[in-house]
Amino acid sequence: MLSKNRIKYINSLKIKKYRQAHQAFIVEGAKSVLELMDSDFEIEFVLATEEFQQKYSTILSRHNAAIETATIVGLETVGSFQTNDSCLAVAKTKENAFLSLNEAEYVLILDDVRDPGNLGTIIRVADWYGITKIVCSEDTTDFYNPKVIAASKGSFTRIKIYYTDLATYLADQAHNQNVIGAFLGGESLYEFPFSANGGFIVMGNESNGIGAGVEPFITHKVTIPRVGEAESLNVGIATAVMLDNMRRQITAKPN
Amino acid sequence: MLSKNRIKYINSLKIKKYRQAHQAFIVEGAKSVLELMDSDFEIEFVLATEEFQQKYSTILSRHNAAIETATIVGLETVGSFQTNDSCLAVAKTKENAFLSLNEAEYVLILDDVRDPGNLGTIIRVADWYGITKIVCSEDTTDFYNPKVIAASKGSFTRIKIYYTDLATYLADQAHNQNVIGAFLGGESLYEFPFSANGGFIVMGNESNGIGAGVEPFITHKVTIPRVGEAESLNVGIATAVMLDNMRRQITAKPN
Repeated sequence: MLSKNRIKYINSLKIKKYRQAHQAFIVEGAKSVLELMDSDFEIEFVLATEEFQQKYSTILSRHNAAIETATIVGLETVGSFQTNDSCLAVAKTKENAFLSLNEAEYVLILDDVRDPGNLGTIIRVADWYGITKIVCSEDTTDFYNPKVIAASKGSFTRIKIYYTDLATYLADQAHNQNVIGAFLGGESLYEFPFSANGGFIVMGNESNGIGAGVEPFITHKVTIPRVGEAESLNVGIATAVMLDNMRRQITAKPN
Repeated sequence: MLSKNRIKYINSLKIKKYRQAHQAFIVEGAKSVLELMDSDFEIEFVLATEEFQQKYSTILSRHNAAIETATIVGLETVGSFQTNDSCLAVAKTKENAFLSLNEAEYVLILDDVRDPGNLGTIIRVADWYGITKIVCSEDTTDFYNPKVIAASKGSFTRIKIYYTDLATYLADQAHNQNVIGAFLGGESLYEFPFSANGGFIVMGNESNGIGAGVEPFITHKVTIPRVGEAESLNVGIATAVMLDNMRRQITAKPN
């Protein structure tokens, strides 16, 4: 039986200021919780149905996380989603640690991506295409928002994220680097030669694109060619198409 | 002031069987309603705030749709989303009309795509990449679901859709055609040569991929190469990457 205090604590973690105060966040659903247990995140506790505990007893016994039995109904009182989830975990957030660009690496930069579903999708897409670092503007939605974590489908465990003032970051880090920004009206993505030397790939806000503070650092403005009539692509989709073109070229080239 | 009957009617259109009975569907939001007015859909009526009517008076005066003034609060009682939308329209659905494959054309086939947000995204992506026809299995989510319409961001006005038994359709239509299916473990999408002669591009269900009834018709199984560790890509994302690779090649090739 979940205590009132625990319910209150978990519910508080749906709000950013309480996540920051407690340095903790919620992970929901079997797939995400199993990936969490397989990661270097520190787990405070796991709430799980008896069925879940039986099904994954081997994995759970290897892990020293505190496990409390809960019912589906109990989980629904604390979960964000009505998905009949069989488990929920609370884990410690990581420090907002600086991320540098290594040789021959591409780092993704997000300038004011606001929608949690979009950020989660971008994390999943980055993980698919072998990007491990994302640097975000301070107004980009919080990585530890439960909707971000859910939409990332477990990929949040493999992606490092750093929130910072992007103009300051780029002024410091982008010297002699390729800084490729997705713009309407830029060079065709199909003609753009991604360098095997790596660089930054920058995606902007859902409505306004890349902001005026970041634009001066862009060395290459590229556009996803449009054949039909849709006005725009969703930023998660656009990120996938950018990374797909980068990866296709880089994989084909000798490094 | 919205009448009770009108509120009841609009709310009924959130359910598929009433959309089918009334042959009508809901379109919400300024962008989507304006695109609707610019399309060949027959509009039953538009509910709009006075502000919206003033702002778009020229467009509205060119159109003979019945316009009723509503308040934001009134629109909220009938809308699906709490987005402070300034207008909502009800339009007539189109007949489920057969779609054939023209020469040098690519037609998208969806086998049991269940999530309305995914179908809306796919419609938007298809529209971006110049695909105008989508053929869906009968268990694919309803095109006229308000969530599909909203996620398509106006692209629903430019895409033709046809629901049918895919095995029967392909048995009839796929003779000597390329039928390219997205599979895990297929040929690399980066190596696959899309033909300028066109064909079908098939995307499967969110969890189970392309079903056993459709698989025998697939002539080419292709896979989006993965560099990182995410288990899968969302079907909307995967559709965009497939179409992007197709379009990049076809545009570069002489037809």
